[in-house]
Amino acid sequence: MKRWRRKMNQINESIVLKNLQEENQRLKVLLHLAENLQTHLDLDKLLLTTMEEVAKILKADRCTVFLLDEDKNELWSIVAMGIEKGKEIRFPADRGIAGHVARTGEILNIPDAYKDSRFNPDIDKKTGYKTKNMLTMPLKNRDGITIGVYQILNKFDGPFTRADEELLSAISQITATTVENSLLYEEQVESLNSFVDTLSATLDTRDYITAGHSRRVTLYSVAICKQLKAMDCSCEEVRFAGLLHDIGKLGIPEDVLFKAGKLNQEEYQLIKKHPAVTRQILESIHFPRNLKNVPEIASTHHEKLNGQGYPDGLKNGEIPPGGRMLALADVFDALTSRRQYRDREPIEKVWETIEKEAGDTFDIQLMKVFLEVPLKQIIEILEYDQRDRLNEKELTLLAEIPLGTIIEIKRKDPESLDDQDKNINSLFDKYYQRNY
Amino acid sequence: MKRWRRKMNQINESIVLKNLQEENQRLKVLLHLAENLQTHLDLDKLLLTTMEEVAKILKADRCTVFLLDEDKNELWSIVAMGIEKGKEIRFPADRGIAGHVARTGEILNIPDAYKDSRFNPDIDKKTGYKTKNMLTMPLKNRDGITIGVYQILNKFDGPFTRADEELLSAISQITATTVENSLLYEEQVESLNSFVDTLSATLDTRDYITAGHSRRVTLYSVAICKQLKAMDCSCEEVRFAGLLHDIGKLGIPEDVLFKAGKLNQEEYQLIKKHPAVTRQILESIHFPRNLKNVPEIASTHHEKLNGQGYPDGLKNGEIPPGGRMLALADVFDALTSRRQYRDREPIEKVWETIEKEAGDTFDIQLMKVFLEVPLKQIIEILEYDQRDRLNEKELTLLAEIPLGTIIEIKRKDPESLDDQDKNINSLFDKYYQRNY
Repeated sequence: MKRWRRKMNQINESIVLKNLQEENQRLKVLLHLAENLQTHLDLDKLLLTTMEEVAKILKADRCTVFLLDEDKNELWSIVAMGIEKGKEIRFPADRGIAGHVARTGEILNIPDAYKDSRFNPDIDKKTGYKTKNMLTMPLKNRDGITIGVYQILNKFDGPFTRADEELLSAISQITATTVENSLLYEEQVESLNSFVDTLSATLDTRDYITAGHSRRVTLYSVAICKQLKAMDCSCEEVRFAGLLHDIGKLGIPEDVLFKAGKLNQEEYQLIKKHPAVTRQILESIHFPRNLKNVPEIASTHHEKLNGQGYPDGLKNGEIPPGGRMLALADVFDALTSRRQYRDREPIEKVWETIEKEAGDTFDIQLMKVFLEVPLKQIIEILEYDQRDRLNEKELTLLAEIPLGTIIEIKRKDPESLDDQDKNINSLFDKYYQRNY
Repeated sequence: MKRWRRKMNQINESIVLKNLQEENQRLKVLLHLAENLQTHLDLDKLLLTTMEEVAKILKADRCTVFLLDEDKNELWSIVAMGIEKGKEIRFPADRGIAGHVARTGEILNIPDAYKDSRFNPDIDKKTGYKTKNMLTMPLKNRDGITIGVYQILNKFDGPFTRADEELLSAISQITATTVENSLLYEEQVESLNSFVDTLSATLDTRDYITAGHSRRVTLYSVAICKQLKAMDCSCEEVRFAGLLHDIGKLGIPEDVLFKAGKLNQEEYQLIKKHPAVTRQILESIHFPRNLKNVPEIASTHHEKLNGQGYPDGLKNGEIPPGGRMLALADVFDALTSRRQYRDREPIEKVWETIEKEAGDTFDIQLMKVFLEVPLKQIIEILEYDQRDRLNEKELTLLAEIPLGTIIEIKRKDPESLDDQDKNINSLFDKYYQRNY
């Protein structure tokens, strides 16, 4: 009797031990997941990591997180695998198994998808994937509101179990909050972004003569910045600084700002104040850390390497790289823009004017980098206000030809051009002279 | 021999079991903490919750999370307990135990604080608290950079153990990421906020005649909104809409906008376009969900309940409550502002003008609510550009007197006023007429 009791105790202890070990394993997995997901505030990265990790945890081939877009009543996700990785897929929120789960909040554990009438085989057809078993579960936030759907496909060793359901349910709780935080963050980022975009575009339209100027300066500067691939200059800062570099013009009366004729000395001094006003305005804004140099970059777009610029007469290294990019882009846009009294300057003359100031006003290295920007991109910026009319296919021919090439061609004796040069030349002229 | 081995196995199993149980408990605590903290993207709430939870977990009296402010080289935290709950405390980042830990990255487990020379007793002195034992640990992010310091005070049953150190180290990893996410989020919120604030202030200064108009309209509207305590109207939306309600004026030439004399029909039509331009601009912005009604509120500030307003001739319920608040605030500010050709209208005449439009232009309920706003607040808005000169102590006398009272007083026979009314009247006049 005593031995039997001891035996039973041992067996009980073994069961307790096994249960504890299993729970321990489960808790570790969940904690690791929670810690891992927390590090991604960027929604795309968060979703990709979640899908990868959860498939691993459930020993399944694939995991997709669909999010509910309430405005459009659609479910969407990003493609986690294959050549289209990172692309978005979308479908009406009432389609298929995911739609059913989003609508009802039910958990669906389906051992054979093709035997279930609710299954929508369209995505399989598109992707060439073969869905076998699937576990689909709503992604609910703390308030119990469904914000999306988890869909796990093809568990390696047969259909999903009750234990898988429980595990996914715990995972779902953790990830719902992380996803919501990420959505809130992205909303804020997008909000600032679109605010700056809209304001810049609004200010750009005030003066019809220079319409679109800030946008084009931004695009040229970012093109230079990307071509440069420099570590000490963030393209995002350059972009914001470009969009906002002339915001200081809000401080200058329109009758001076838009005066058609020549400015007198007093008026010119007033105009020259605008980069300082830009700095003053932008320094009142608490930019996020990744944009903290925006005020400095934006307000140095009229400085010159030789110290003859304004507002502070900074020299060489005192001018941030972003400010030097804006300076170059600003003058390039002015010279390549139509004015009331003249057409676009010929491109070789534009570059000649810039070359005269090489090292004095403009950074020689950035000029070289600018010449490497593909002509297709240059034309897309030059003709930004006509972007819907551009012939994408035709322009592809200029996708690998750098800006420097057309300037070389223009400087050659026209008689000496080979066929390729002639082609490039006439294609460029067509867009540059707006004969399209 | 066999019995002995069995006995040993049993003992071993018991130890394994106990260890597993302890680890399980630990994992559960950490997972619960991770899930709990995730739900707070708001930094203050996150810090308060963290401090509360971690003190509980470590069975200690107090937990403080100090964050490193690198710009100012200070450590700061918010007060978690007592009457100053929610207030910020700050000190140089090299002071005391927390400073030592922030600088060196060391973990300090101190059984008796007052026997340690590094201990800074200033905070105890200020708060009347008695620190006994303390555990202080750096809060490091994923890259190993110290972003703050954990300080746990007064463990209930004696000094902190090695196990406490390990637990806090795991907690620290979880919370560091959560805190960083929260900081990034707050940065973005603050960024949009300060951007809108700055832009509004910049636009406000363009026209010196109406300088500060958007700011004051915002403050009046938010005062009405807060006084109303309505569920269907968010004060934050009203604030943004107020700051941006005239942004559409960017689309109107300055010579019309700032014309001193009377406008002709054509110019007046141009001016009347501004709320529609406001809507167009604001609708291009992807506001976060808590601000999604900003474009509608901002663009309905010239609508009238009787449908005679512009741009859309909306009626009654078609005008959102926020738009009706702006309409009232807009006219109140115009009538109480000095103009080139006149002083402020007397306050009773201002209200008479508004009353004439009660129900036609203005919402009668909102007018009632406006009359309940304390006079102190009204004067602080009226004299916003002089806010540094206001006598806070004197104005406290008007902190409980509603706007309605001064209008009643002005309508009484001056001979019939009692002493209190006379006091209110002369104090109000002093500020309203700027004799201070």
